[in-house]
Amino acid sequence: MVRPVTSGVVPEGLSTPSTLVIADRLERNLASMASFAATIRTALRPHAKTHKCVEIANKQMALGARGISVATVGEAEALTAGARSASAGSAVDDVFVCYPLWPAGDLVDRLSVLAERVRVRVGSDSPDAVERLSALAGRIGVMIEVDCGLGRSGVPPSGALAVARAAERCGLAVDGVFTFPGHGYRPGAAEAAAADEVAALDEAAGILNEQGFDGLERSGGSTPTARKSTAGGLTESRPGVYVFNDAQQVELGVAGFADVALVVAATVVSRPARGRIVLDSGSKVLGADRPAWSTGHGRLLDWPDARIVGLWEHHAVVSLDGPVPSLGEVVAVLPNHVCSAVNLVPEMLVVDDGHIVDAWPVAARGANR
Amino acid sequence: MVRPVTSGVVPEGLSTPSTLVIADRLERNLASMASFAATIRTALRPHAKTHKCVEIANKQMALGARGISVATVGEAEALTAGARSASAGSAVDDVFVCYPLWPAGDLVDRLSVLAERVRVRVGSDSPDAVERLSALAGRIGVMIEVDCGLGRSGVPPSGALAVARAAERCGLAVDGVFTFPGHGYRPGAAEAAAADEVAALDEAAGILNEQGFDGLERSGGSTPTARKSTAGGLTESRPGVYVFNDAQQVELGVAGFADVALVVAATVVSRPARGRIVLDSGSKVLGADRPAWSTGHGRLLDWPDARIVGLWEHHAVVSLDGPVPSLGEVVAVLPNHVCSAVNLVPEMLVVDDGHIVDAWPVAARGANR
Repeated sequence: MVRPVTSGVVPEGLSTPSTLVIADRLERNLASMASFAATIRTALRPHAKTHKCVEIANKQMALGARGISVATVGEAEALTAGARSASAGSAVDDVFVCYPLWPAGDLVDRLSVLAERVRVRVGSDSPDAVERLSALAGRIGVMIEVDCGLGRSGVPPSGALAVARAAERCGLAVDGVFTFPGHGYRPGAAEAAAADEVAALDEAAGILNEQGFDGLERSGGSTPTARKSTAGGLTESRPGVYVFNDAQQVELGVAGFADVALVVAATVVSRPARGRIVLDSGSKVLGADRPAWSTGHGRLLDWPDARIVGLWEHHAVVSLDGPVPSLGEVVAVLPNHVCSAVNLVPEMLVVDDGHIVDAWPVAARGANR
Repeated sequence: MVRPVTSGVVPEGLSTPSTLVIADRLERNLASMASFAATIRTALRPHAKTHKCVEIANKQMALGARGISVATVGEAEALTAGARSASAGSAVDDVFVCYPLWPAGDLVDRLSVLAERVRVRVGSDSPDAVERLSALAGRIGVMIEVDCGLGRSGVPPSGALAVARAAERCGLAVDGVFTFPGHGYRPGAAEAAAADEVAALDEAAGILNEQGFDGLERSGGSTPTARKSTAGGLTESRPGVYVFNDAQQVELGVAGFADVALVVAATVVSRPARGRIVLDSGSKVLGADRPAWSTGHGRLLDWPDARIVGLWEHHAVVSLDGPVPSLGEVVAVLPNHVCSAVNLVPEMLVVDDGHIVDAWPVAARGANR
């Protein structure tokens, strides 16, 4: 039996399923994006929702990131200095909650505490939401969310002024505009989405500029679009997935198999029929994300022709012609969407040259609020 | 603005997203299935992968369950007496790991410890796997997995004898045969899947009987097929989802909205366009499961016409004609697949008559090994 590719990333004797970070690939991905951002003179503010990990956020800061992006105040708390759940001291001193927060319950109080130790920006897409932040005037900055074509949250560019005026009335600084070009998550769509992103941010910032708002950040980015950016397009880029990559990025052509820095080690538990094997990596460790354009529920690092054609909580059914892995063999699986996979485990094992060298807590696991 | 239905299940002032168990609905679901199983004289062994919770397992045992089903040894450890992560003392004294385990690493040792405190059965679908359990001869029972049409793991009925012979050679008790009729998870497919299940188990058990294996368990079940069973069809039924139900069960016609006992409370954070609202319940709290036949990524308890047409990690985009919930309003969301949603949180808040009355740890959260 010949396996098509041998990466040698999975240590011997591992209990499965186990979520592994491949150290040298992670370092290469981190350095490459930092270098690209520097080349186009765009500030890098990686989205930490992908890794949720203080150790990786610190590496990003050391490579020149301006700060981190997060989706929730809880993620910000877990990933900044002084957070109780952080295992390592955090070097992060600047956080952007790039989400249209609805400031209710304890959120304003928690943002207030957070703003005592790090610089804080929060997203908003309505005057009503901004007004609920007024107690934080002078202490946080507001970023106005603009929809550049995804059809999720965010105002159209023409709607940014009403949000900015609300912030002004409350004494809140308008730091800029932001968008997420998520409609670039389809094969061949990244280039157009990157252009949409710049156009929407330019239009919104232009309207605000005319009304006296200046020095505005134009923040965008996603992993598929990040490298489509050019100097002067954005002032800030927020890719997240690039640290690890995943089956989606491989199938979008954004990354190759050799650029994937997180895999789930899984055991072949059953070989019920010719060309079909069953792995113990189900949706409770891979996540169940499956875009319509994907070829399956994930990929296998060393078996590029294999497809995960069925996924249940503890079963991944793999279809593969020709030689297949043996019963009991451990294989490396690429989740479709690495952000979901990381959130399913308390820690990631760090492997280097086939050996476990560290274990990093997923400090912001489940920090959905 | 008139909301079509008012369930009143969500307490005031809740931070969102929060995962809520509706106490009276849970009790009704538990009692109803226990009563049905008693009527058809079939032992009930609920699958605990759904709730992963000692408190609920104990209720199932109190209502006459024979024991619980689990997918992993880790789930068994977390949900049985003496488990360190259990918050309540467990009443579970009988566990079936209904999964084709590949006994490597520490699994045999862990099963040995488990078998000291509870009765243990484990699944297998190959002679190779069974042979690796030989050190546990006399201490655990083997259940042979048969495929009844799903095409996942399990031998065809004719393949059960080879596995049974391997167990016999190792001195392991062959306790019976089991199957999962998961191909009933399509609209209109449950009845046929329930028939397939009985036919496959009967065929396999018949072959084994002829060869001298007797007293065999015939274990099947899933929530969509459970109530299609009749007396004498199965000896043991293993539904899981019925305790809570979810959007899938509603859309399959297995449950109504009023039977759904777990919801995610979510806030309307954005109303970017007419007929579109954005909730803060994304895939990191609902899970990303989406079968091809579903109408979206989940449903809203009090807005039955609403559809979740887009789902990201922290955004659920809802499409809804006519009146829509207000910005800042808290709504109750049904996940598509409740087993995935439960696994995403450390605890479930128990609500009764609109008030929080308890918090139950998800003791087996992330117990994938």
